[in-house]
Amino acid sequence: MKIIGSMGKKTENLKIDAKKSFLKRIAKNVKVSEGERAVEDILRCIYRNQPISTKKIGQYVKLPLPIVSKVRSILERESLLKRDDKGAVLSKKGIDFVENELGLKLKSDMKCPVCSGRNIVFDEKFEKILKKHKTYAKLRPQVNTMIDQSFATPETATARAAIMADRGDLEGKRVLFVGDDDLASIPTAMTGLCSEVVVLDIDDRLLKLISEVSKKENLNIRTVKWDFKNELPSEFVNKFDTIFTDPPYTLNGAVLFMSRGIEALGDNGILYLAFSHKPVEEYIELQKSINNMNFLIYELIPGFNFYEGTEIIGNTTFLARLVGKNLKKIEVNSEKIYTGELKPTLRYYQCMNCKKIHEVGNKVKRIEDLTCECGGKKFSMIKRAKVKQK
Amino acid sequence: MKIIGSMGKKTENLKIDAKKSFLKRIAKNVKVSEGERAVEDILRCIYRNQPISTKKIGQYVKLPLPIVSKVRSILERESLLKRDDKGAVLSKKGIDFVENELGLKLKSDMKCPVCSGRNIVFDEKFEKILKKHKTYAKLRPQVNTMIDQSFATPETATARAAIMADRGDLEGKRVLFVGDDDLASIPTAMTGLCSEVVVLDIDDRLLKLISEVSKKENLNIRTVKWDFKNELPSEFVNKFDTIFTDPPYTLNGAVLFMSRGIEALGDNGILYLAFSHKPVEEYIELQKSINNMNFLIYELIPGFNFYEGTEIIGNTTFLARLVGKNLKKIEVNSEKIYTGELKPTLRYYQCMNCKKIHEVGNKVKRIEDLTCECGGKKFSMIKRAKVKQK
Repeated sequence: MKIIGSMGKKTENLKIDAKKSFLKRIAKNVKVSEGERAVEDILRCIYRNQPISTKKIGQYVKLPLPIVSKVRSILERESLLKRDDKGAVLSKKGIDFVENELGLKLKSDMKCPVCSGRNIVFDEKFEKILKKHKTYAKLRPQVNTMIDQSFATPETATARAAIMADRGDLEGKRVLFVGDDDLASIPTAMTGLCSEVVVLDIDDRLLKLISEVSKKENLNIRTVKWDFKNELPSEFVNKFDTIFTDPPYTLNGAVLFMSRGIEALGDNGILYLAFSHKPVEEYIELQKSINNMNFLIYELIPGFNFYEGTEIIGNTTFLARLVGKNLKKIEVNSEKIYTGELKPTLRYYQCMNCKKIHEVGNKVKRIEDLTCECGGKKFSMIKRAKVKQK
Repeated sequence: MKIIGSMGKKTENLKIDAKKSFLKRIAKNVKVSEGERAVEDILRCIYRNQPISTKKIGQYVKLPLPIVSKVRSILERESLLKRDDKGAVLSKKGIDFVENELGLKLKSDMKCPVCSGRNIVFDEKFEKILKKHKTYAKLRPQVNTMIDQSFATPETATARAAIMADRGDLEGKRVLFVGDDDLASIPTAMTGLCSEVVVLDIDDRLLKLISEVSKKENLNIRTVKWDFKNELPSEFVNKFDTIFTDPPYTLNGAVLFMSRGIEALGDNGILYLAFSHKPVEEYIELQKSINNMNFLIYELIPGFNFYEGTEIIGNTTFLARLVGKNLKKIEVNSEKIYTGELKPTLRYYQCMNCKKIHEVGNKVKRIEDLTCECGGKKFSMIKRAKVKQK
């Protein structure tokens, strides 16, 4: 703590300016919209958790991995960071900077090791559900990135069922999944708490899998193929109490899927939204849309959901429990809901066998369809580039 | 799980209608704006936690105690509930209703017993801070309800310091408390992490106490008397990184205090808001105001804060961590920020010694000023009535 006199304040402010300008310079370089706060978050994360992998940093700071990688490279160039076998560690210069310029002192987090902030703990029943669900999750088909699919971990899917159960949104309730590439309907139905579980999804492969598991486990999940670009069939309108959706990660996608949820809820009800941690401006727009539909954000847990290999969103999304009263839909352009429709990108993948580089997003639309001339089927993404739209 | 055929659905819907109409009738009777959901929440809370006191129910469902009491009375009249020494328990009829009509099955919560959803766990250092702070919290003067004072527990004040520390909002940061009747500045400064801690408050008594503790513990907290109906003095404008505020529980009060926070932050920064769980419509209005100031609701934890004897808000409030970018103030009518200014009420207190009933809010403005003719100084509130405004 510094004593604040007029002289003291001047020195203090100069120091803050110097610190800010360094962080600002890096943030500008990386074009991260969160600005210097993002750079500071990354440094703090490393200071508390070193050595730490880029993936774990991404999960911690909730930023896409390409951004974390860029910041890390610049910090390495500035000699603040180095790498050891297990990940990033601060150099002597780095420690000096974070301790003396940023004022960091805490060597570890105080986050809850038991629930990670989800405020649920699996009881014996849910541990059993998780164990079973793990075997079914392995049967999932390959993701279809054209429709923004990404698979939540079995643990995440089970945690969703658990939080809905704990918060009183499953017992005796009619539950609808507006899309379910995460197979969260399976652990949800396994609780045996709901009066009805229905899954609508555009992907036949997933519906078939859910259907098969449902039959085998006697879960009575009803599956119906549906493209949410269309309004719900009348038999589903005003018939549900609780909605779960993990929509395409565009504002339009979120609003469209939530509006379909509103059709299913009628005037009132609960909607769980899993969505990526967007840059501040975009995220605020989403929250405004949520409120404009007359949903209250009752509970908001950052980093609730973990995914398998979705590096672009830093592998985690938040979960929001929304309470709706006098709900009203918002109309959006339903032709631009998937990331690929809104922001067409070319992605470059390197074959992990022969190192050849392939372009995806033009002739080859999806990484799932790529096979290397050498026969290799494993690739790692090395670059993304936006396609200029006409 | 029921098999849904056209006949099954009809029976199911009839049943749902019957269930809903019963809950609706009670909700209407109590005039609780959350409607049947609130009644269902109360029943579920009792089912999982019986026997349970009214106060604990209020904390659980986040409703004001007078509303919980009313619902409980009606449920007793309907023979669904009875009371034993330790609180409310469901009767046989009650169990039958919640299990067969509402479909409840879970006999206990799955909430985190370690962090209660706060996603922080005190380390040794914070346990020491809490222990110390408990002794100082005892020195607080009586609450002044005219300015919506209510005292958070020492454990809550320390948890606020801990969450701000964990989330990276104290280390090297200039922290301002926009009002601090909870004395949260004391555990915050005790962390030794901040570059500056300043408290602005209208109440001399609290500032004096904070100042004395600060001197004794060498905390360097700066205290300044300020009425937030006025803009901040220029020396505090654009000078802080982190704001904490637990404003008067009116929308105007929240917006005014947050706007003062924005003056102190400048363009960007973090604001922690502790606020009561309002009815859905009012709460959505608050969230819209938050977003309109360009604050993002990054994390929202219901029931984070516990208070000593503030029954009217059910003893708990939420905590929201707001991330601001390109912040802008909202102008409000600063003459109507306290509950008493906005909704003048008469309250009736019974002397716990001689049982005489006293009116508070007219000649006697505050319960703090009341002494019974018998010499009694302990009262319990028995009734509230709104004063018609001119």
